[in-house]
Amino acid sequence: MDHVDLNADMGESFGPWPMGDDAALLDVVTSANIACGFHAGDPDVMAATMAAAVANDVGIGAHPGFRDLEGFGRRRIQMTPGALAHAVQYQVAAAQGMARAAGGTVRHLKLHGAMANMAAEDEAMARTAYEAALALDPDMIVMVLAGTAQERAARSLGCIWAGEIFADRAYNDDATLVDRAEPGAVIHDPEIAARRMVEMVGAGAIVAESGARIPAAVDTICLHGDGKTALAIARAVRDGLKAAGVTLRRFEGRRD
Amino acid sequence: MDHVDLNADMGESFGPWPMGDDAALLDVVTSANIACGFHAGDPDVMAATMAAAVANDVGIGAHPGFRDLEGFGRRRIQMTPGALAHAVQYQVAAAQGMARAAGGTVRHLKLHGAMANMAAEDEAMARTAYEAALALDPDMIVMVLAGTAQERAARSLGCIWAGEIFADRAYNDDATLVDRAEPGAVIHDPEIAARRMVEMVGAGAIVAESGARIPAAVDTICLHGDGKTALAIARAVRDGLKAAGVTLRRFEGRRD
Amino acid sequence: MDHVDLNADMGESFGPWPMGDDAALLDVVTSANIACGFHAGDPDVMAATMAAAVANDVGIGAHPGFRDLEGFGRRRIQMTPGALAHAVQYQVAAAQGMARAAGGTVRHLKLHGAMANMAAEDEAMARTAYEAALALDPDMIVMVLAGTAQERAARSLGCIWAGEIFADRAYNDDATLVDRAEPGAVIHDPEIAARRMVEMVGAGAIVAESGARIPAAVDTICLHGDGKTALAIARAVRDGLKAAGVTLRRFEGRRD
Amino acid sequence: MDHVDLNADMGESFGPWPMGDDAALLDVVTSANIACGFHAGDPDVMAATMAAAVANDVGIGAHPGFRDLEGFGRRRIQMTPGALAHAVQYQVAAAQGMARAAGGTVRHLKLHGAMANMAAEDEAMARTAYEAALALDPDMIVMVLAGTAQERAARSLGCIWAGEIFADRAYNDDATLVDRAEPGAVIHDPEIAARRMVEMVGAGAIVAESGARIPAAVDTICLHGDGKTALAIARAVRDGLKAAGVTLRRFEGRRD
Repeated sequence: MDHVDLNADMGESFGPWPMGDDAALLDVVTSANIACGFHAGDPDVMAATMAAAVANDVGIGAHPGFRDLEGFGRRRIQMTPGALAHAVQYQVAAAQGMARAAGGTVRHLKLHGAMANMAAEDEAMARTAYEAALALDPDMIVMVLAGTAQERAARSLGCIWAGEIFADRAYNDDATLVDRAEPGAVIHDPEIAARRMVEMVGAGAIVAESGARIPAAVDTICLHGDGKTALAIARAVRDGLKAAGVTLRRFEGRRD
Repeated sequence: MDHVDLNADMGESFGPWPMGDDAALLDVVTSANIACGFHAGDPDVMAATMAAAVANDVGIGAHPGFRDLEGFGRRRIQMTPGALAHAVQYQVAAAQGMARAAGGTVRHLKLHGAMANMAAEDEAMARTAYEAALALDPDMIVMVLAGTAQERAARSLGCIWAGEIFADRAYNDDATLVDRAEPGAVIHDPEIAARRMVEMVGAGAIVAESGARIPAAVDTICLHGDGKTALAIARAVRDGLKAAGVTLRRFEGRRD
Repeated sequence: MDHVDLNADMGESFGPWPMGDDAALLDVVTSANIACGFHAGDPDVMAATMAAAVANDVGIGAHPGFRDLEGFGRRRIQMTPGALAHAVQYQVAAAQGMARAAGGTVRHLKLHGAMANMAAEDEAMARTAYEAALALDPDMIVMVLAGTAQERAARSLGCIWAGEIFADRAYNDDATLVDRAEPGAVIHDPEIAARRMVEMVGAGAIVAESGARIPAAVDTICLHGDGKTALAIARAVRDGLKAAGVTLRRFEGRRD
Repeated sequence: MDHVDLNADMGESFGPWPMGDDAALLDVVTSANIACGFHAGDPDVMAATMAAAVANDVGIGAHPGFRDLEGFGRRRIQMTPGALAHAVQYQVAAAQGMARAAGGTVRHLKLHGAMANMAAEDEAMARTAYEAALALDPDMIVMVLAGTAQERAARSLGCIWAGEIFADRAYNDDATLVDRAEPGAVIHDPEIAARRMVEMVGAGAIVAESGARIPAAVDTICLHGDGKTALAIARAVRDGLKAAGVTLRRFEGRRD
C-alpha cells in the first residue's frame, strides 16, 4: 500500500472544559472523528470543530457514543437494539447538519468508547449501530477496528468501510490488542510507533508483537491528541510514513 | 380565508415518563411540532413520533427549546447569539435526520417555551434562531406568533413563514395575549374556542376581547394535548371549522 | 410473625413529568423509598415527597440509582467501586438533608433498578454501596432482597438490615424470582397476591410456586404504585394482612 | 484588622475534564468553595476535593449553582423561589454528607456564578437561597459579596456571615465592581493585587479606583485558580499579607 489515512478523535471539549489540542492535531490528520454531544462535545464545540475541519480540509466523521458525559462514554451501558439505533441516528443526524452548516459533509462514522468496544465484540450490535447511520446516508463510510466484529458487521451489510489500526498499541497473534495490564501493551516511544506503522502500512497487515503478520485492511491509523506523548507520536507517525514514501490522504473506503 | 392549519406540540415524553395523548392529537392536527431532546423528547420518542406523523400524513416541524429538561424549556436562560444559533441548529439537524429515517421531512420550525417567548419580544434573538435553522434548509417554513417580534424577524429575513394564533387564549387590542392572571384569559369552553376560531379564520384577523379586529396572518391554530379540556377544545375547533366550510390542511407558508 | 412493613418507591416524577400516585400509596405503605435525583426525582419532587411522607408518618428511605434519567436507572452501567460509592453517598446525603429540612429522617436505604439487580448478584458491589451509605449513618437500615447477595453483604457488614419480598412476583425453589418471560411470573390478581403475602408473612418464609417454603427474613413487602393493577394489589395486600391479624408497621431491622 | 481569610472555588472538574489546580490553591487558601454537582463537580470530584481540603486543614464551603453544566452555572436561569430553595438545599445537603464522609464539615456557603450575581442584585432571592441552606444548619456561615444585596439579606436573616472582596477586580465609589469592559477593571499584576489587598485589609474598607474608602466587612478575599496569572496573584496576595503582618486564617463570621 502506498497511501493511508490518519484519524483522531476531536471536539471532545464540553461547556467550560477544554480537552485535547485539536488545532495541533488538525495539522497532522486527514480525518477527524467529531464527538456528537452525548459523551462529549456541545453545539458550540461541534460547530467550531466542524469549521476547523473544513478549513483544514480534513475529512469529517460522526463519532457517537453513549449518553454519559460523566463517564465520557467509556462505561458500558446496556441498551435495547432500538434505543441504540435511535441514539446513533440522533447523534449522526445532528453531526450531518452541523457539518452542512459549516460547509462540510459527514463522510464517515466511528463509534466511541464503550459503544465501540462492545461493537468490536458483538457483531449484531455493530450491525444495529451501522444500519442506523446508513439509513441517514447509505454512502457513509463505516470505520471499523480491523479484524473485529465491527469489520464482520460492515462486510455483512455490504456497506463501504475502512479498516483502522492503532499507532500506539501492541497486537497479539490473533489481531486483538495486548491487554493494557501487560508490559509493552501501550507504545510511548514515537520512533517505535512510527517504525511499526511504516511496517504495517507497507505490509498491508497487522504485525503482532511476535512478529507474526496478519493481513488486514490498513486504511487508517488511529492517533491520539491527549496525554504527554500523544502529539509527539502523531507527528512521528506522520513524518515516518512520509519519509517512507507513503501518501497521507483520506480513505476512500472499500466494499467487500 | 377558506383553509387553515391546526398544529400541536408532540413527542414531549422522555424516557420512562409519558406526556400528552399524541395518538389522539394526530387525528386532529395537520402539523406537529416535535420536541428535539433538549427540553423534552429522547431519540426513541422522536423516532416514534416522526413515524406516527408520517403515518398520519401530518406535517413535521422541528420544535427546539432550551437545554433544560427539569424546567421543560420554560425557564428563561440567557445565551449568547452564537450559542443560541448552535443549540437550534443541533436540534433541528437531529430532527431532520430522524424525520428522514422515518420517511418524512422537517418542513417547519417552531420555537418552544421560554425560547419562543423571548423571541416574541426580541426580534434580534428571533432572527438568530431562524437563521440558524434556515442555514440547514432555506425552504423551511418558520412558524411565528402572529403580530410579534417573531413575525417581524421572519419578514425581515425574507424567509417563508406562517402566522399562528391560539385557540384557547384571549387577545388584547394590540394583538398581545391577555395576561393569564386576568379572568377569561384562558378559554376552557370548547364551543367558545371553536366559535372564535371560525370567526378569526373567516376574518383573517385576530379578534380581541373587545371585539376589535386586528388583521393578521391566520395560517395555523395552536392546539394543546395536555390538560383536562385540551383534547375537547382541539376536536371542537376542528369540527367547528369543518362545519363552517373551512378546509383543514397544512400551511404552505408566505413570503413577504 | 405478627407484623410486617409495606414499602413502595416514590418521588419518581421529574420536572414536568409526573409518575405514580404517591398520595394513594402513602395511605397504604409504612415505608417509602424516595428517588434521589439520579434516575428520577428532582429537588422539588424530593422536597414534596419528603414532606408528604412526614405528614403520613411513613418511614423515609433513600433510593439511589444510576445517573440515567433516560433509562430510569434500569440500564446496567459499569462503574468502578469508588465511583459507585461516591454516587451512592452523594444521593443518600442529599436525601438526608432534604428529609431533615422536611422534619424527617432517612432511616433506611434501598438500591434502585439495575443497581439493585447487580447488587443482588454481586456481594462485593452490594457491600460497596452499603458501606458508602453507612459511612453517613451507621444506624441506617439496609433493605435487602431476601436471600440474595444483597442479604449476604448486609450480614457480612454486621449492619442493621431488613429483608424484602415481592407482592406480585412468583418465586423459584431457590428463592430467586421466576423469569418474567414465564407464565405466572408476575401476579396481577389482587386476591392471589394478598393470599400469598398472608401465607409468607405467617410462615416467615418465601413460598415458591411449587409450594416449597424457604425460610426468609420477611420484614417488608414491596408494593408498586404504577400500572393498572398495582394500587389494587397494594390495597388488597394491606387489607388481607390486617384481616389476618398482622400488624402493619415500619420494620425495625435486624442485625445478624 | 490583623487577620483575613483567603478563599477560592474548587472541585470544578467534571468526569473526564479537569479544571484548575486545586492542589496548588489548597496550599494558599484557608477556605475552599466546593462545587456541588449542578454547575460542576461530580461525586468522585467532590469526594476527592473534600478529602484534600480536610488534609490541608482548609475550611469547607458548599458552592451551589444553577443546574447547567454546559453553561458552568454562568447563565441566568429564572427559577421560582421554591425551586431555588430546593436546588440549594439538595446541593448543600449532598456537600454536607460528602464532607462528613471525608472527616470534615461544611462550615460555609457561597453561591456560584449567575446565582451569586442575581443574589447580589436581589435581596429576596438571596434570602431564599440562604434560608434554604440555614434550614440544614443554622450555624452555617454565609459568605456574601460585601456591600451587595447578599450582605443585606444575611444581615436581615440574623445569620452568621462573612464579607468577601475580590483580589483582582477594581471597585467603583459605590463599592460595585468596575465593568469588565473598562480598562483596569481586572487586575493582572500580582504585585498590584497584593498591595491593594494589604491596603483594604488594613483599612477594613474597599478602596475604590478613585482612592475613596468604603468601610466594608473584609473577612475573606476571593482568589482564582484558573487563568494564566491567577495562581501568581493568589501567591502574591498571600505573601504580601503575611509580610504586612496579617494573619491568614479561616473567618469566624459575624452576626449583626
